[in-house]
Amino acid sequence: MKKVSIFVIAAAMAVSVSGALTPSAGGADDGSYPIFGGKLPPGYRDWKLISVAHEEGNLNDLRAVLGNDIAIKAYRAGKLPFPDGAIIARVAWSYVSSEENNKVFGRPQSFVAGPPTNVQFMVKDSKKYMSTGGWAFAQFNDGKPADEALLKTCFPCHEPDKARDFVFTHYAP
Amino acid sequence: MKKVSIFVIAAAMAVSVSGALTPSAGGADDGSYPIFGGKLPPGYRDWKLISVAHEEGNLNDLRAVLGNDIAIKAYRAGKLPFPDGAIIARVAWSYVSSEENNKVFGRPQSFVAGPPTNVQFMVKDSKKYMSTGGWAFAQFNDGKPADEALLKTCFPCHEPDKARDFVFTHYAP
Repeated sequence: MKKVSIFVIAAAMAVSVSGALTPSAGGADDGSYPIFGGKLPPGYRDWKLISVAHEEGNLNDLRAVLGNDIAIKAYRAGKLPFPDGAIIARVAWSYVSSEENNKVFGRPQSFVAGPPTNVQFMVKDSKKYMSTGGWAFAQFNDGKPADEALLKTCFPCHEPDKARDFVFTHYAP
Repeated sequence: MKKVSIFVIAAAMAVSVSGALTPSAGGADDGSYPIFGGKLPPGYRDWKLISVAHEEGNLNDLRAVLGNDIAIKAYRAGKLPFPDGAIIARVAWSYVSSEENNKVFGRPQSFVAGPPTNVQFMVKDSKKYMSTGGWAFAQFNDGKPADEALLKTCFPCHEPDKARDFVFTHYAP
């Protein structure tokens, strides 16, 4: 079942809206389904850096976690839960060895960001997404929203981290 | 020989200025020595993300490369050489296994940013730093500028990458 819309898994009755409902740049989604109008939120790539990570295994990526201003402010204040309007973006790229850098270092030690893999988002609205900890989850592959089945796997994985408002990534100073 | 100032290695005759010469936020240094007045440039942690990397070996870090607006604009336009005023920051943290994340994944696969290691900068001024490819190099350890001896090792390492204006990091879309 391949769908081209993002379904917010928190919604008891998801209503598909095909119109272009664009969110304000860097702001929370406007409550329509799919969130972000099925498009990558404008300006997310300019958001401030929360932290970086490397996942081995099937993911095999290098990733950056970015936050809109509301998320960054909460992170830096060390305040939980995140306030409504916070959006956290996870950008990831294939984990590739850099021949170019290794030549300079004189040994194979440098791994850099290769082609992008996908972009994921967590959007906070404590009322609207109450059944999933106050968060909606989204993923874009090549700029296209992932289907509902995939998004249903997000919250169960984040659920054990309730003490940290379901967010794994710590702020890297 | 431990010095508390950043010496710009490009300067034929480095003049130590002890006064607090603070640069404009996010802008290029003001030409004084040490650059940035010996302090981390204000706001660098808010700069936009260029890319991420992992270095093995002695470095053993996860790193993010950030750029001020001039640097980011040049990167996104794919224009070389970088214009004067471009500043590139390399922020790095110890590479640590995340027990917290591995529990969720059910296997040891997650590596995250631990304690910060150091922060490095490249500052472009094609005239002032002509003898080092138009770039000044700086490093801060715990917010304190590294000594001159260390900074002398920067350009020789970057020199082979002349075709890319001495900058290793590629922009990660």
